[in-house]
Amino acid sequence: MTDDPIIIMEFDHQSRLRKVRKRLSRRGLDGFLVAGKKNIYYLCGFSGEDSWLLVTAERAILITDFRFQEQAAASLPPECEVSLRTRKSLNAKAAELCREHSLKKIGFEERHLSYGEFYRLKKSLRSRELMPVGELVEELRMIKYPEEIDLLRRSARMTTRVLSLVMKGLTPSLTELDVAGRINIALLRDGGRSAFSPIVATGLRSSQPHAVASHHSIGGGNVLLIDMGAESEAYNSDMTRTFILGDFPRKFKTIYRAVLGAQKKAIRLIRPGVTASSIDGVARRYLEERGYGSYFGHSLGHGVGLEVHERPVISSRSRDVIKKGMVFTVEPGVYIPGWGGIRIEDTVMVTEDECEILTEYPKDLESMVQKMKG
Amino acid sequence: MTDDPIIIMEFDHQSRLRKVRKRLSRRGLDGFLVAGKKNIYYLCGFSGEDSWLLVTAERAILITDFRFQEQAAASLPPECEVSLRTRKSLNAKAAELCREHSLKKIGFEERHLSYGEFYRLKKSLRSRELMPVGELVEELRMIKYPEEIDLLRRSARMTTRVLSLVMKGLTPSLTELDVAGRINIALLRDGGRSAFSPIVATGLRSSQPHAVASHHSIGGGNVLLIDMGAESEAYNSDMTRTFILGDFPRKFKTIYRAVLGAQKKAIRLIRPGVTASSIDGVARRYLEERGYGSYFGHSLGHGVGLEVHERPVISSRSRDVIKKGMVFTVEPGVYIPGWGGIRIEDTVMVTEDECEILTEYPKDLESMVQKMKG
Repeated sequence: MTDDPIIIMEFDHQSRLRKVRKRLSRRGLDGFLVAGKKNIYYLCGFSGEDSWLLVTAERAILITDFRFQEQAAASLPPECEVSLRTRKSLNAKAAELCREHSLKKIGFEERHLSYGEFYRLKKSLRSRELMPVGELVEELRMIKYPEEIDLLRRSARMTTRVLSLVMKGLTPSLTELDVAGRINIALLRDGGRSAFSPIVATGLRSSQPHAVASHHSIGGGNVLLIDMGAESEAYNSDMTRTFILGDFPRKFKTIYRAVLGAQKKAIRLIRPGVTASSIDGVARRYLEERGYGSYFGHSLGHGVGLEVHERPVISSRSRDVIKKGMVFTVEPGVYIPGWGGIRIEDTVMVTEDECEILTEYPKDLESMVQKMKG
Repeated sequence: MTDDPIIIMEFDHQSRLRKVRKRLSRRGLDGFLVAGKKNIYYLCGFSGEDSWLLVTAERAILITDFRFQEQAAASLPPECEVSLRTRKSLNAKAAELCREHSLKKIGFEERHLSYGEFYRLKKSLRSRELMPVGELVEELRMIKYPEEIDLLRRSARMTTRVLSLVMKGLTPSLTELDVAGRINIALLRDGGRSAFSPIVATGLRSSQPHAVASHHSIGGGNVLLIDMGAESEAYNSDMTRTFILGDFPRKFKTIYRAVLGAQKKAIRLIRPGVTASSIDGVARRYLEERGYGSYFGHSLGHGVGLEVHERPVISSRSRDVIKKGMVFTVEPGVYIPGWGGIRIEDTVMVTEDECEILTEYPKDLESMVQKMKG
């Protein structure tokens, strides 16, 4: 179904590991245990479970077990080697390698190591020093490599292609769950899969920003909010459109224009150097000035990449600063309990001096009016 | 497509919370912070993200945010209440509630709290005592309630139904990924979804216990291993069958019989009171006696429920003892590098004096020979 050719992507793992090592040496660390699954994938291309990556100045050692031996051999770049933890726990094997390589000060990911794992690792390592490194890899992941941008584009194209297809087949008797199911199936047929359970919310239920699709039929309400995204070759996309079915109340029109205006204003501000909080601020003020400030209770957006929600954070309290190569969502919304909700969300990519919208699906008011058969 | 009627399940959350409180009081804890997503769902039926559950002797308080407010209101049983953490972090809000309720000794899940979360919570709580509780909820979850067994049965039936359907449509030119895709789609059409990415491994690739489906066409090899499972209404199932396509080498026959013999021997031993390690042992010895011991490198099985892998652990080092109401897999395998692998896996449920196989799909040698069109 897809018209996108299959490309075998070459990832520059050497450059990624080099950046990590630079940061380790700056902090005086001679080793780094990576436990976050997506971070391991980012650094060495391995996607198995229950594995850690130990990065030293010279080596990158994937600690895994029997089950993933062949997968590791097939997927690891030449910069990385495998160490099987045969009948040892991850932390015992990691401690053994730290001793073998005489590592003294070892960084760890406090977001990805559970307290229990940390505690056992600490015991196995005895006097060696363990230092939390914060979001070291997540911060690298904020700036996408060109090969990642290619995959993010493909994922975004898949998302818009599938939404067009699903919208064509809507009838009033379908339930929210039916629509969510069709999205899931269409994404699989297109070679990807849902990045998250699609939110399909009709009528009053659209006022829940994270509504779970239900047995309500979509013909029952006149607002249909669809928040969906593809995961394709490990990279995600995220997009929301709010459609109007049948009747066209004036209030919808007014609020829709406010939300779209807020989104456009935010998008126009995006360029390298501006703060994430100022982007959130410009959209929030736009809605406040129109009397909808109290109905916009979440942050404006979030980074998208190997995870659907990652850095940067686009919120009033964020300290992230926008840089070229960042990819994130811009998703203002107005949710009025007892009336319904409208959200418009796009995934955008920051270029040299502005941003490019990756999820190219129409969002002008006229295109949102959906005529259904039956 | 399913012939299973839709049932609205009533979960006895009161009984679950009562069991937790009994264990808290035994350990002298007056509060318990539940951070594991599946554990929260088990105790109060809430499935949103970024939320914790605080259980005290009297109360069960879900700490969540704006996005999940309506979902929490709709899904929580009367025993539970909601506390919104408006603009506060989870740990700050949790600490505030611990102060309000004058809790002094608070249990936490060291498997589910990251080191970073633990560290911040510890700081917010100041002098109050934090105690790791191990797998308190996971241990309760080992023994399934009757309503959980019903859902596990449905999930297992969905798995066998979908595998039958997919096997009927096989042709030699399909790739492993095509077959995995068909399984994913058929599960969605049946109202569930894949509990995990199906393993579809043909020929030599079947020797990787956790092979990732590839672009190899299934007609290329003569062994086709399919490991799949449904997730239906939050409950999982897990099943593996190894088919033979076309030619029928004598070696396949010999090894298949050994694996099936090992599985049957283990299944016959299962009843309340036996140790998990003895079940693993009997299958392992059976394969060792036939010269395949070194080709069976993983444990015999794992619990199945809200997670695909949960307690009990069925391995040589497990200390779990089998009880009525446990549900787990029995999955011996022989993997010979350069030749291929054979695994047979069923999900079984422990009854009063034996066990019942939930994944009723044929596994006798004759049924494994697959004739394909084209």
